[in-house]
Amino acid sequence: MKDFIIIGNKAVNGGKISLNDLPGSAGRMDVLCRCVTSALFISFGMRRDINVWLILKGEPGPSKIVRFNGETMRSLNPDERSSGSLIQKALLIDASDAEKQSTPGVFVRYGNLEQLLQNFSENGRPLFYLKEDGKDVLEMTQTPETAALLENGVYILGDNQGVFEEDEKTIEDANASKISVGPISLLSSQCVTLILNALDRAQANE
Amino acid sequence: MKDFIIIGNKAVNGGKISLNDLPGSAGRMDVLCRCVTSALFISFGMRRDINVWLILKGEPGPSKIVRFNGETMRSLNPDERSSGSLIQKALLIDASDAEKQSTPGVFVRYGNLEQLLQNFSENGRPLFYLKEDGKDVLEMTQTPETAALLENGVYILGDNQGVFEEDEKTIEDANASKISVGPISLLSSQCVTLILNALDRAQANE
Repeated sequence: MKDFIIIGNKAVNGGKISLNDLPGSAGRMDVLCRCVTSALFISFGMRRDINVWLILKGEPGPSKIVRFNGETMRSLNPDERSSGSLIQKALLIDASDAEKQSTPGVFVRYGNLEQLLQNFSENGRPLFYLKEDGKDVLEMTQTPETAALLENGVYILGDNQGVFEEDEKTIEDANASKISVGPISLLSSQCVTLILNALDRAQANE
Repeated sequence: MKDFIIIGNKAVNGGKISLNDLPGSAGRMDVLCRCVTSALFISFGMRRDINVWLILKGEPGPSKIVRFNGETMRSLNPDERSSGSLIQKALLIDASDAEKQSTPGVFVRYGNLEQLLQNFSENGRPLFYLKEDGKDVLEMTQTPETAALLENGVYILGDNQGVFEEDEKTIEDANASKISVGPISLLSSQCVTLILNALDRAQANE
């Protein structure tokens, strides 16, 4: 099982978002949509052992978490508008602190990064924070011990604005290990692709 | 200099495409848009040493080539709708066999894969064909000779339907080397990300 948490610093969390303006009025929702595609899609199918948790921290608040669950996902295509449409539907139902399914495989609730990381830590899941000065994920997959941790990892990524100070403190307090995917700072969705490729390669060499 | 050629088997090549339906009526134009984003964008800027050549083989015909040139590109954002909008503008101008610029950094002309590969071959550019049974690009970057070829490479990828037989024959006749990016068949845009990451890593280790 792998989980990807993407922090949407300005991502709108209520009302009807415009699918024609995901980058603008929806608060760079396009960044999150691309991460969903990178995490769940392969050429002829879907990665079923993955959850993508989108933290929508923008207006009007409070923060919501939309989860895309690979195992039960239906009606999702790789284009940004497709995942955007499922996020739109998730934001139109009455949210509570408990997760509700809005469409098959998509869930929504009120929540923030701190609660999410606490849940994962309580379940013994290793946390990884994507950061330029982190350890190279490809190198880490060369060692069986760290490869096993990565295979069961929870990966935390920022959006186009990165991760703000208070969230970074939350991540550090949760003892996440810093990892990186190469020498150049890339789009969040590209980082997701590179993490999964490193894991695919490790699994093929087992 | 690196060039990416993406074959859009059904991609519409005339008339006004709908930005609200890139996957449907525009003939999986979303696949090509994602490749443009993967090839040209990094976290805080653009890769300037890259061209992306989209071969639009669909209706109404004949086939057109839309080129995104990193060096001179303006007004491009990472979302699919942004590159889709520039493709839309390129398809609305009168095309000829000679390239015309439709918007800054975007060029269009009539043309097909065979002519394109011939031009690259005449200029001594090494051709690489992305294929599951190809040599691993990460391994190839370990050898200085092949790394230098890759750094100057022309990369040929199919879309969601792959590469049809006649195009595959054209690619083989042009003596392209087969390369792969890992053990699992991925989206074209994900493959672009993985090729560029392998090159980034090689360059950082020089």
